[in-house]
Amino acid sequence: MIANTPQPPYYVVIFSSVRTDVEDGYQEMAQEMEDLARIQPGFLGMEHVRENGLGLTLSYWQSEEAIKSWKENERHMLAQSYGKAKWYRAYKTRVCKVERDYEFFTSL
Amino acid sequence: MIANTPQPPYYVVIFSSVRTDVEDGYQEMAQEMEDLARIQPGFLGMEHVRENGLGLTLSYWQSEEAIKSWKENERHMLAQSYGKAKWYRAYKTRVCKVERDYEFFTSL
Repeated sequence: MIANTPQPPYYVVIFSSVRTDVEDGYQEMAQEMEDLARIQPGFLGMEHVRENGLGLTLSYWQSEEAIKSWKENERHMLAQSYGKAKWYRAYKTRVCKVERDYEFFTSL
Repeated sequence: MIANTPQPPYYVVIFSSVRTDVEDGYQEMAQEMEDLARIQPGFLGMEHVRENGLGLTLSYWQSEEAIKSWKENERHMLAQSYGKAKWYRAYKTRVCKVERDYEFFTSL
């Protein structure tokens, strides 16, 4: 569930969103976008959680170029446009460089 | 719910975690850590969501120095140590520089 990303540096796009009540095609498009993101060049992983209306979607990328290509993907642009028109009340996208990371795993 | 952060650049610490079944003081400590983080110098905001076992906690900071001070806060170090000993099965912490952001808000 925690994305198995490589050694930094790499990039992360943080998409924080608040949904409207409109379902109309949302689940299908969200699934399509996840499937499509996973086959983009430079995709490294994804973590997504939604609770009490706030959604956090983190997608990890090898480079800024990979992020730019994904942003300009034709289906993704359509999804972004639908998103503004009906699915999201508000969102904020932050493009970040991951400078260092550390982890902890138990075998429990 | 979406953190109202200033113009980039600023920093974000992404804490992705999977909990154990152990409750023992977890909620109280999580609340204490949130309250304590919010009064640290350089704290800019926080977004937290947990669903189906995966938790994502994003804390936003003005500088790397602010992150370092928070990491070394005495109560926070105790919480980190309890976290490894009993509350978390796994976690990954990523320290990132937010390079750009954009947002969308409706009045709906």
